[in-house]
Amino acid sequence: MRTVVWDPDGPAVQLIDQRLLPGELKVLSLRQPDEVAAAIRDMAVRGAPAIGAAAAFALALAGSLSPASDAVSLQTELRRAADKLRACRPTAVNLGWAIDRMLRAASQAAPEGPEAIRRRVSLEAQRLADEDVEVNRRLGQHGSALVRDGDTVIHHCNTGALAAVDYGTALGILRTAHEQGKRLHVLVDETRPRLQGARLTAWELDQYGISHEIITDGAAGHFLRRGEVASVFVGADRVAANGDIANKIGTYMLALAAKDNAVPFYSAVPTSTIDLGLASGDQIPIEERDPAEVLDLQHAGRPIAPAGSRARNPAFDITPHRLVTAIVTEVGILHPPFGPALTRAVEEASRPWASS
Amino acid sequence: MRTVVWDPDGPAVQLIDQRLLPGELKVLSLRQPDEVAAAIRDMAVRGAPAIGAAAAFALALAGSLSPASDAVSLQTELRRAADKLRACRPTAVNLGWAIDRMLRAASQAAPEGPEAIRRRVSLEAQRLADEDVEVNRRLGQHGSALVRDGDTVIHHCNTGALAAVDYGTALGILRTAHEQGKRLHVLVDETRPRLQGARLTAWELDQYGISHEIITDGAAGHFLRRGEVASVFVGADRVAANGDIANKIGTYMLALAAKDNAVPFYSAVPTSTIDLGLASGDQIPIEERDPAEVLDLQHAGRPIAPAGSRARNPAFDITPHRLVTAIVTEVGILHPPFGPALTRAVEEASRPWASS
Repeated sequence: MRTVVWDPDGPAVQLIDQRLLPGELKVLSLRQPDEVAAAIRDMAVRGAPAIGAAAAFALALAGSLSPASDAVSLQTELRRAADKLRACRPTAVNLGWAIDRMLRAASQAAPEGPEAIRRRVSLEAQRLADEDVEVNRRLGQHGSALVRDGDTVIHHCNTGALAAVDYGTALGILRTAHEQGKRLHVLVDETRPRLQGARLTAWELDQYGISHEIITDGAAGHFLRRGEVASVFVGADRVAANGDIANKIGTYMLALAAKDNAVPFYSAVPTSTIDLGLASGDQIPIEERDPAEVLDLQHAGRPIAPAGSRARNPAFDITPHRLVTAIVTEVGILHPPFGPALTRAVEEASRPWASS
Repeated sequence: MRTVVWDPDGPAVQLIDQRLLPGELKVLSLRQPDEVAAAIRDMAVRGAPAIGAAAAFALALAGSLSPASDAVSLQTELRRAADKLRACRPTAVNLGWAIDRMLRAASQAAPEGPEAIRRRVSLEAQRLADEDVEVNRRLGQHGSALVRDGDTVIHHCNTGALAAVDYGTALGILRTAHEQGKRLHVLVDETRPRLQGARLTAWELDQYGISHEIITDGAAGHFLRRGEVASVFVGADRVAANGDIANKIGTYMLALAAKDNAVPFYSAVPTSTIDLGLASGDQIPIEERDPAEVLDLQHAGRPIAPAGSRARNPAFDITPHRLVTAIVTEVGILHPPFGPALTRAVEEASRPWASS
């Protein structure tokens, strides 16, 4: 099942409300671009590839709802919707990447008039979503070579079907390895503050029938030090040109613990997550989210801190490339030095599918 | 206010139920040694020095309640109670240390008969508690030299008055520095799974009027990497002869992040936490607690993981001495090589108070 889909009858963008899992599996049907923007901002949909696809469909929605009768005013409306979507979450580059791709498609179709723009944006959004699934399948195939039969691996945050249109990145690798018959066991970082590991990754692993146990984020080092872990798999929200990665908060400390114990640390990303425009991770903007995410524990109604407590809540951190063993993409596994490898991968991915 | 006290009128051991903070400040009055054992096991009382004092008072209680009319049978009863207490939590050495001290006192008084044993054990427990306060004050004085005016520091778990009889270890240092007029800001690791940071340390810092913000455990690396942190302060539950420390789960990853950014990492302990009998941290037993602590989030009534999920829940981890900048004790600040420094510190602490 795809987790972000276009419903032409609405028209609407349908997506799983990830805030309610694992307790409730509810599909939202969003008929306004602003509703999709809110879903991205409030993390009803999350995961770099998934928010890229959701934003692409939101622009298809914006085109379809617009009363504009000429290409120029329709493009202006699309750009306005694009600006709103882009501002929702600053760290993941896929959001901007998907939006830019839609605006480019609109611009190419503009000479043929507003209806052509609407058709073209809609088509391009669907193509982006379809490609995401295919890209993840290829990525999973490449990465599965890194998983050996009997491995125990650590996984941080959620990088599965929920984080993409389907299949997922790091979790897609584990799923592929499992489908190949390799026995594996996943130690699932719970991933505070929003618990994407405990809530979402454990839920997905349950669906796939992959053996797993949940651990607190701080416990990963203990298991690494004990020699119980063969490798660590994470995704990324943005990869800088030098191989530094921005990923869910806690990734940097996990990478340090892997390095300290000579355990390989792998980041799995579609090439759309690579941002060759930024020289290093220090230039990647880090989103700070509402302190309530830290203080309220899933809004359980029970305070976990004294009334009036303050909190800091950076949603991502930067893992320097020196801690990354390899970056897995849909065009293959990249090894250090990452600079030239990332450039080549982006070039290779931009060629037509038939030739790859 | 002392957090573990003897009530001679009960007789009873009185202690704050730390499971209810910060929502409720409730003092338990425990009249049976088994009730104290349960309070230690269930973490109504926690913190290496505090559980040592609680166990000492539990043995005073056992002596006082025993109908034994001769020294031999009273000592047998005390040893039975001691065995139960010792089994409650395996990692913190202070528990065994306090129990051994009580049994030694009983044994010394034995020739004078059962009443003498009762008096002596009771006196020794009170002395241990009084010494704990004094030891922590000295430790705080020594350690405060490591805090500079204007510092932002990271603190893990709870090491304050709640974790000791009063004052605390690492948090005692920060309190002393604050009382000396140094401005400081504490980034409080929430400390999953039991949230001793968010619940207890934030509560204590509120009482002391020390500026602080709560962060998730995984976010510490982000702030260290940004250069916002001057130093890291933790306690320890056991220090091996080579300076390896066992402390609350997550400490090892925090120490790695401090090291990677050349930020000093300090562990503050009374010398009673030093276990010269263990050559390295690998020999320290690590308690694994109920997976429900990970899966239930303070029993908020809202599952954070799919039904039937499994979890691993090691309560402590080992931080190798190479990551520790200095160990602060009541006899001074110890620097590497820790082997000889720890031996000297234990010797010095065993001299009578007057001479130190």
